[in-house]
Amino acid sequence: MKSVLILLLGLTFAFSTKSQNADSIQLRGLFEQALTGYESYNQLKELCIKAPGRLAGSTASDTAIVLVKRMMLGMNFDTVYLQPCYVRKWDRLSPEICYATDLKKGKTKFNVLSLGGSASTPSKGIEKEVVQVSSLDELKKLGYAKVNGKIVFYNAQWNDKNINPFRSYGELAGFRVHGAKESALLGAVAVIFRSINPVTDDFPHTGIVRYVDSIAAIPAVAISTADADQLAEMLLKNPEQKLFLSVQNKISQDVASFNVIGEIRGQKNPNIFLTVGGHLDSWYNTQGANDDAAGVIQSLEVARLFGKCGIKPNYTLRVVAFMDEEMAQRGGKTYATEAVQKGEKHLFAIESDRGAGAPLGFSLDVSESAMQKILGWKKLFEPYFIYQFEKGGSGVDVGPLKETGAMLAGYVPQAQKYFIYHHSEADTWDKVDRREMQMGAAAMASILFLIDKYF
Amino acid sequence: MKSVLILLLGLTFAFSTKSQNADSIQLRGLFEQALTGYESYNQLKELCIKAPGRLAGSTASDTAIVLVKRMMLGMNFDTVYLQPCYVRKWDRLSPEICYATDLKKGKTKFNVLSLGGSASTPSKGIEKEVVQVSSLDELKKLGYAKVNGKIVFYNAQWNDKNINPFRSYGELAGFRVHGAKESALLGAVAVIFRSINPVTDDFPHTGIVRYVDSIAAIPAVAISTADADQLAEMLLKNPEQKLFLSVQNKISQDVASFNVIGEIRGQKNPNIFLTVGGHLDSWYNTQGANDDAAGVIQSLEVARLFGKCGIKPNYTLRVVAFMDEEMAQRGGKTYATEAVQKGEKHLFAIESDRGAGAPLGFSLDVSESAMQKILGWKKLFEPYFIYQFEKGGSGVDVGPLKETGAMLAGYVPQAQKYFIYHHSEADTWDKVDRREMQMGAAAMASILFLIDKYF
Repeated sequence: MKSVLILLLGLTFAFSTKSQNADSIQLRGLFEQALTGYESYNQLKELCIKAPGRLAGSTASDTAIVLVKRMMLGMNFDTVYLQPCYVRKWDRLSPEICYATDLKKGKTKFNVLSLGGSASTPSKGIEKEVVQVSSLDELKKLGYAKVNGKIVFYNAQWNDKNINPFRSYGELAGFRVHGAKESALLGAVAVIFRSINPVTDDFPHTGIVRYVDSIAAIPAVAISTADADQLAEMLLKNPEQKLFLSVQNKISQDVASFNVIGEIRGQKNPNIFLTVGGHLDSWYNTQGANDDAAGVIQSLEVARLFGKCGIKPNYTLRVVAFMDEEMAQRGGKTYATEAVQKGEKHLFAIESDRGAGAPLGFSLDVSESAMQKILGWKKLFEPYFIYQFEKGGSGVDVGPLKETGAMLAGYVPQAQKYFIYHHSEADTWDKVDRREMQMGAAAMASILFLIDKYF
Repeated sequence: MKSVLILLLGLTFAFSTKSQNADSIQLRGLFEQALTGYESYNQLKELCIKAPGRLAGSTASDTAIVLVKRMMLGMNFDTVYLQPCYVRKWDRLSPEICYATDLKKGKTKFNVLSLGGSASTPSKGIEKEVVQVSSLDELKKLGYAKVNGKIVFYNAQWNDKNINPFRSYGELAGFRVHGAKESALLGAVAVIFRSINPVTDDFPHTGIVRYVDSIAAIPAVAISTADADQLAEMLLKNPEQKLFLSVQNKISQDVASFNVIGEIRGQKNPNIFLTVGGHLDSWYNTQGANDDAAGVIQSLEVARLFGKCGIKPNYTLRVVAFMDEEMAQRGGKTYATEAVQKGEKHLFAIESDRGAGAPLGFSLDVSESAMQKILGWKKLFEPYFIYQFEKGGSGVDVGPLKETGAMLAGYVPQAQKYFIYHHSEADTWDKVDRREMQMGAAAMASILFLIDKYF
């Protein structure tokens, strides 16, 4: 109790009422500009419609790079440039084919899509029995005898109990990433993965699958939740039901790609950096509106809001559209590596990559003393229904900057619906609400303004 | 500062850690049951699909009453009954017709819908010049000379600056309710009201219009935001453009309708009541999913959650599906009037009528001392991203219970998108997310559980 009181007193004196008033007016200005602005929403539409499926290394990603650079050049940046980063190109060569043949019913087709990076079947496809599991433990218990030569169907349900949907995602994503390896170790020939999706619908949700050199790379696809249920029902009737699967993909060489960066030069300390970003790449099957066109566009909007509100930052503000978050995070890694190599001083970096829902707050990877200072600003955010300031991870794109000693943060929106769209064709621009997206941009602009002023 | 410290100490001692732990487990149980339950969402769909357009007194409202009573009878209520209330029936006799004729372009049709309770034009319609205004002041300044004999087109834009969309709604709804009277005073023959909608689309959003006996009741319609823009453009080119309007409605007599009530009998004080409700009626043009099928269904879910979690309330819990919120609030008034007449003691009442978005918190109309007690529970709600406990209004259905001395509350969800659907055909069941709706039900169940235990 005592420490709470001391803390409370400390914060009160450290942060005077006068500053609070000026800051409160500044934040109001940022939110009003955001809510009355339509440029960002138009940019979101443009990016989603002109460059869907912008997986790192793809032609669509090149279109996206050119587009966002052009957007930045039309805005209030002092400098706009491309930062080269090399990405490993992976291509889907033809649509996946998956069906079951039944003597009575004929063919039943299933909606499947390759996991990102998936290997291929032989060109004529495979037709094999299916072994259904709902956990890695279950798979391991079945062992080689029951898995060898079969297609593993991982049919684990979304866990509805978790309040935070990212936790449910995390519970399932492990198998998506590593399940192909684990299955191959037991002799499986392919993996069919139930899409990570809290609702039952027809959209497969893709995502990364990882291989290692020492284990056979077997093809891995995501199946829509509706079709996973149908397949499970079919297997209940006939456990020996075979499934045909054809997956034709190609791992190419490393190719050059780019982070797109815009800078507003700092007035006092131009060689100290604040970074705000989202990732420009998306999965091959989607507009990637929530994941993460919105994060990129919100980051651009932060700069626009600074301009509209006449905020000239003390430190240099860098807006970064990171490349290759989905496949190998090369953009984020390159950005941090270059920062270290050049000896850049990074004060703070924040990313938006949890969808464009209305703001909840921030997840902060900062020191205890910085945390206390930031907690002193909580009241300033309450008028915008922003209450959550918690210690936690930032995100995979700004995360590598930790090496520079930077404070890191992730923007946290309401995300109860996020995984309905995530990594699927359903993640279209109209799934993003303009006001909610803009509230997020203003939230990020606000914390950046305060960090810039008080750190 | 001192008072804050005393308060903090007081709360800490008043509410021991032990209770907090037990309560925290109980709340977790309520949220988990809510998030893993699908009964409510199925009920929401059923109500929306089987009884759309359930305006008080309509056949659809009778269907809704029967349906919700049947739902309640299948649940864990001790008693289910109908509470008669009389409503004034208003009928739309035929679809509205509105168009402008141009010698070159021919007819341009506009999407308009009667405001609720609107009077009619003569049966052959009217064709009159239009006078456009964007505020009541502007209308008054124009005066009789410029308004007489014309159709008033109230074309005020949604105010994007407000953080809370209910504020923007409030700024516009005044003219929708009273604009016909004000216009008629200046000789206007009809009112066309720009829909209250933050986005530009083709859906007219209706809502109540009120008349008084002393002023001519002129017809009033809502026009979609897209068509309002089109009409404004047309008037810019030709300020003398005439508009044809035909509106055929009918005010009927008072007819019998009902509130639908389910009770779980209190274990210790069955004659003291807790009420939770939403309104069963909707506008004639919509499934009314967010407004307010979801509120009704969430209220039912509160009872279901009590059952699933084995909570036997000390006081009697009444779930009320209120009739006639949209037109004249007769259901809410009747419920309170009967409570007063019977000398019922009401401890607490909460309603959900702000959409089914993810929870923000509660608006509390309670005494200062009750407020302090409730604020002591804030920490219990934080795991569910519920942070807002503010003094404020409850809602029009439970509001009249104030006379009984009851503490009142309104459930407050995120509502940035609410007015895109509100009072329009777009408010369909699929606009409600199951998890978000269920979080709201659990939030209400939680505060009711705590009130029941600690008051």
